[in-house]
Amino acid sequence: MKRPRLLLLVIATLCLAALPASAGEQTDGPARYVNPWIGTGGHGHVFLGANVPFGFVQLGPTQTHSGWDWCSGYHYSGRMLRGFSHLHLSGTGIGDLGDVTFLPVADEEQDSTAFSHDDETVRPGYYAIRLQKPEVKVELTATARAGFHRYTYAPGAKRLMKIDLRHGIGWDALSSSSLRQVDGRTIEGCRLSTGWAKNQQVYFTAVFSSAVKLLSCNDNIYTIQVEDDGKPLLVKLGLSAVGTANAKENLEHEIPEWNFGAVAREATRLWNQELGKISIKTRNEALRRTFYTALYHTMVAPSVFCDVNGDYRGADGKTHQGNFTNYTTFSLWDTYRAAMPLMTLIHPGMMNDVGETFLHIYHEQGKLPVWHLVGNETDCMIGNPGIIVLADLVLKGFVSDKEAAFQAMKASALKDERGLGALKQYGYVPFDKDEERETVAKTLEYAIADAGIAKVARLLGHEEDYKYFLDRSQSYKKLFDPRDGFMKGRDSEGRFRTPFNPFHAVHRQDDYTEGNAWQYTWLVPHNVHGLVGLFKNEKAFTQKLDSLFLAQGTLGEDASPDISGLIGQYAHGNEPSHHIIYMYNYVGQPWKAARLLRQTLATMYHDDADGLSGNEDVGQMSAWYILSALGLYQVDPADGVFVFGSPLVDEAELQVGGGKTFRIVSHNNNERNMYIQQVRLNGKPYPKSYIGYKDIFHGGTLEFTMGSKPSKFGTSVKNRP
Amino acid sequence: MKRPRLLLLVIATLCLAALPASAGEQTDGPARYVNPWIGTGGHGHVFLGANVPFGFVQLGPTQTHSGWDWCSGYHYSGRMLRGFSHLHLSGTGIGDLGDVTFLPVADEEQDSTAFSHDDETVRPGYYAIRLQKPEVKVELTATARAGFHRYTYAPGAKRLMKIDLRHGIGWDALSSSSLRQVDGRTIEGCRLSTGWAKNQQVYFTAVFSSAVKLLSCNDNIYTIQVEDDGKPLLVKLGLSAVGTANAKENLEHEIPEWNFGAVAREATRLWNQELGKISIKTRNEALRRTFYTALYHTMVAPSVFCDVNGDYRGADGKTHQGNFTNYTTFSLWDTYRAAMPLMTLIHPGMMNDVGETFLHIYHEQGKLPVWHLVGNETDCMIGNPGIIVLADLVLKGFVSDKEAAFQAMKASALKDERGLGALKQYGYVPFDKDEERETVAKTLEYAIADAGIAKVARLLGHEEDYKYFLDRSQSYKKLFDPRDGFMKGRDSEGRFRTPFNPFHAVHRQDDYTEGNAWQYTWLVPHNVHGLVGLFKNEKAFTQKLDSLFLAQGTLGEDASPDISGLIGQYAHGNEPSHHIIYMYNYVGQPWKAARLLRQTLATMYHDDADGLSGNEDVGQMSAWYILSALGLYQVDPADGVFVFGSPLVDEAELQVGGGKTFRIVSHNNNERNMYIQQVRLNGKPYPKSYIGYKDIFHGGTLEFTMGSKPSKFGTSVKNRP
Repeated sequence: MKRPRLLLLVIATLCLAALPASAGEQTDGPARYVNPWIGTGGHGHVFLGANVPFGFVQLGPTQTHSGWDWCSGYHYSGRMLRGFSHLHLSGTGIGDLGDVTFLPVADEEQDSTAFSHDDETVRPGYYAIRLQKPEVKVELTATARAGFHRYTYAPGAKRLMKIDLRHGIGWDALSSSSLRQVDGRTIEGCRLSTGWAKNQQVYFTAVFSSAVKLLSCNDNIYTIQVEDDGKPLLVKLGLSAVGTANAKENLEHEIPEWNFGAVAREATRLWNQELGKISIKTRNEALRRTFYTALYHTMVAPSVFCDVNGDYRGADGKTHQGNFTNYTTFSLWDTYRAAMPLMTLIHPGMMNDVGETFLHIYHEQGKLPVWHLVGNETDCMIGNPGIIVLADLVLKGFVSDKEAAFQAMKASALKDERGLGALKQYGYVPFDKDEERETVAKTLEYAIADAGIAKVARLLGHEEDYKYFLDRSQSYKKLFDPRDGFMKGRDSEGRFRTPFNPFHAVHRQDDYTEGNAWQYTWLVPHNVHGLVGLFKNEKAFTQKLDSLFLAQGTLGEDASPDISGLIGQYAHGNEPSHHIIYMYNYVGQPWKAARLLRQTLATMYHDDADGLSGNEDVGQMSAWYILSALGLYQVDPADGVFVFGSPLVDEAELQVGGGKTFRIVSHNNNERNMYIQQVRLNGKPYPKSYIGYKDIFHGGTLEFTMGSKPSKFGTSVKNRP
Repeated sequence: MKRPRLLLLVIATLCLAALPASAGEQTDGPARYVNPWIGTGGHGHVFLGANVPFGFVQLGPTQTHSGWDWCSGYHYSGRMLRGFSHLHLSGTGIGDLGDVTFLPVADEEQDSTAFSHDDETVRPGYYAIRLQKPEVKVELTATARAGFHRYTYAPGAKRLMKIDLRHGIGWDALSSSSLRQVDGRTIEGCRLSTGWAKNQQVYFTAVFSSAVKLLSCNDNIYTIQVEDDGKPLLVKLGLSAVGTANAKENLEHEIPEWNFGAVAREATRLWNQELGKISIKTRNEALRRTFYTALYHTMVAPSVFCDVNGDYRGADGKTHQGNFTNYTTFSLWDTYRAAMPLMTLIHPGMMNDVGETFLHIYHEQGKLPVWHLVGNETDCMIGNPGIIVLADLVLKGFVSDKEAAFQAMKASALKDERGLGALKQYGYVPFDKDEERETVAKTLEYAIADAGIAKVARLLGHEEDYKYFLDRSQSYKKLFDPRDGFMKGRDSEGRFRTPFNPFHAVHRQDDYTEGNAWQYTWLVPHNVHGLVGLFKNEKAFTQKLDSLFLAQGTLGEDASPDISGLIGQYAHGNEPSHHIIYMYNYVGQPWKAARLLRQTLATMYHDDADGLSGNEDVGQMSAWYILSALGLYQVDPADGVFVFGSPLVDEAELQVGGGKTFRIVSHNNNERNMYIQQVRLNGKPYPKSYIGYKDIFHGGTLEFTMGSKPSKFGTSVKNRP
């Protein structure tokens, strides 16, 4: 009986072929260079679907699969969808969200649908797929707080819609759901869940273009019968973390009409606007796609987390009324390193609100955010990255109430939780008190945060606090074992961890965090010269740094999967390594950095589904690419000094706010000419191998002249960062 | 603003008063003597609502309260209902069920309703209540597998119905629910939950007399809009543990029409039929109500647990097809003592199916039931009471495949779980191996079961098994400490527990089960003479027994709440004491029993909501009352010997099956004349203080002549049991 089925399939395909073409046409702007598939394979874990820059809503397909590679709900290898969900994470190592999932079904038993990538069309702000059962073309677009669906059914196709409020992604577990029919075309409901975010509340109001009838609810999966009026079915769905009335207001404000094409075009326009913050020149088309896709990935989060009326759900679980734009999804352990510094360059208009969000979180939960997800403190990863980000914002001139910011930083740093109590007592986090794991990583991360507070204290004239936190920012020195030149765990009596193996790593159970001693020994971005000083001499430091990229050893079976993208023991696939290559500038050997940067840019990023060497980490992996491709990197995450690397693009123009632009030109640049020969800033020779944030922020032109051989540029002591 | 509200209330009351009177009229049969409120207060924990004898469905009110006194979902002290649920337990010490709850509401926010007992009308098979918000009279009746609701709304009252699939009672926790609209007047769904019963599956099909529309689902609570056609709303709901199609078939088979009054009358007729199995004569109306209510309470469970087509859900969680009536809710640790023996007297027609159920459970779970709840083995309480019940059935001539029954008993007794492994190794359950708790209770309970197996082995000619289990049935002797005459915990080296306090009890943590050494020392119902032999002499035993009813001591703060109904240390409120008074017959002092029995009957049972001295325990507490009021009690739960007590009723006629009757007449009986002077069986003098099951089962007349003073009756050694 196979032939009749094949025949039916052919007819089905013909029917679908007869459906109208996709609404939003291809764009002219930089959005056309985005390849949304990059990072959907391998272990990139990126979101695929329709959203607007920094939008609350990420409307896209969610697959039936589970496991580490489905943290965003979608992986290139998957072949079954459970529907189209309104919230997704992008690039995390833990799965959550995946809320409010629509699936057009042919009968009530159907709970998923097979699909092929051939039937998918994706670009920033727009996702489309042709399904066979029922025969329907699904198109999705979004605004910041609402999703817009268009279902173009083949004639006679059954119009049943399942709304799955039961399933989430990864750690997500339903607490309760609700759905009610408000009128003939409107439903509203909520989905409360616990997971990575302990208390996630999603409220929604959905309006259909045809009459609907609630048929059934099966374990929090609702089936709706949609009237067949012969037209494509449109569904507009507003979301809110506060309540259904707010969801309705968000929807009415953001999608007042029924013009799907217009909303899709507006989403693309918003992407072009934000992606246009950096325009580049390059002859390499793959590079262009990799670059703009990376830039696109840096703008999925932080996500707007307040309603159009200013209401938002605070870290205390309560509803607050704000006169600022509240944000969420702060993967700060990752993003303090490059993603947030990049934002200060091209999204300065957002940064006051980011700072305001941090201060409100501080008031709501008693400390600055660590890893914030849909308004919840997850305390994920370690350290106090929120302090670092806020310090950087203050030092760069953002945040109106700098004193309040300082007090929030100080209070957060003086708590007794997560090893801070032991740090205060012993001057480092010993591995035999309170905290017994990741004590090296914690000591080093806290030192970076303390350096940030110290700088802000100095700026505001808090002399005593400056001294206290400056002293604490040096605590990394206590973990350095001069006998072999590694950062090591130390007990409360001061004894270094034995036995010791610099290669060995046990995920979240040893003295490091997703890394080993080889990788963590360099984690002093706030005081590179201090680190150099721990070695016998600069040469010893440099030799050790050289050996990092050559060292071969076994991580062991229990090592973190995050330790990826290895060059020797340098692990580009995870964040603690991200600043290391640029350390060569601090010892006058920028050419060594140039070679390694070009190697990393060329081998760790590709115009391909498997194009990322590790988790995207909510924009950090891509932000490293953007900055490095521009030839810049902020090694100290809280001081505004961007160190030169080796620019990959021939020319770049950054919209740095207030109508000003900062141009970067790389003369004589090509694959071989990777070494900076000389630099000019605003036409004048510029001998330093770094540039301050203010010089970029005020606009201007930075010109690199490249060559195929290392030069003297940046070698003299006075020109090093 | 209080006056307008009061005025509204008056109007509301007038409107309700205008509603039609209750459908099922008062009955002529014994059902009219049932006071369903008995045991709804205090700690009786009985079910209140509409059901038929041994029906799967118990349709009645469920209150919003939680806690130990709401194991049935309803307690006399409660004032708020969350609705009318279809399944309830009666008299347990753990809460579960409470599935599929209907609540007429005035708006979608309403989730409960205040009520007054003044507005309730209850009799066997029928429950009615008048509610104020919305103004509606709710009437409920039931068949074995279906519930029938009638809602008579005041004119203009809003017709919204909430169907709560979220909440259960006590330990019940929802796993998932489902509800779908099948057509304009039909819904179907399921509720899967875990709790005391690990895997409870409830499927239902409900048909409404008016058009309905599914409006919303809020966290597994569904709101239905019912069309107002000006008539009372009828809802018929079929249940099944197998599936919705079976639920539909059950409904169509049991309630094919829409005649609520006829179904309610049929429910009452069934109760009259079953309650009529015992007709009594007494001038004491309170006694009559107490008696028939007790009889009513012995017929809530076991409950039918199969569909009209024979399908049932087995102990393996799978669907089976049976050619017998499968039962569930076997509170065997309680009911093996009196409730099941009573059933063998008045429900002989059910007992083959009970035996068949046991054998199927054995095949499905590898052992006979311990405490079976909606098809789940809960392993609640201790021992192997299922063996005792099955042995009694076999010995009384039930169960066609006696060899299969024997093999099931033997296999269940030879398992290694729950202390049986240690019992096999040490000859008792020591408190320092495998099992460390309740080891005295376990040893004693297993000995009772082993005595049952030994008798069946002897009956079937299994000589070796007979010897083995007879030997094991004597294991109680190993725990008797002759130094002070108490049963005590013993370690594997044979050392008795020290320090020792015969009064002290720690709930489920010490050597006993809901009891202390005073209460457990007598738990040898299968070998009373063996127990007597452990004492220095019969006098020593009798003195000890006398002192039980006088001993005063402190149980301690952590004692079980089940140790209630105390006379000295005799605890009538819990089962291990139930046979003790009758032990006087074994030492020729039945007059002592008579006095204590009359005291217990008079003080532990009342025609009052607080009329039970402890948990009803699924019929056991009431069955003790029935048998004792008849003057009979089966001390050894597996031998069919009923020991005489002190009959309370003047005359009783038992329908013992096959059209035969067994009459018990108490001449000259009154409150003072509590002592048996002489006995005649079928007109002939009968000197023995006990009677065999066969003498009852074959029908006949037993005449007691009572007097106000102890007599010589039953004193001589040859006439004792």
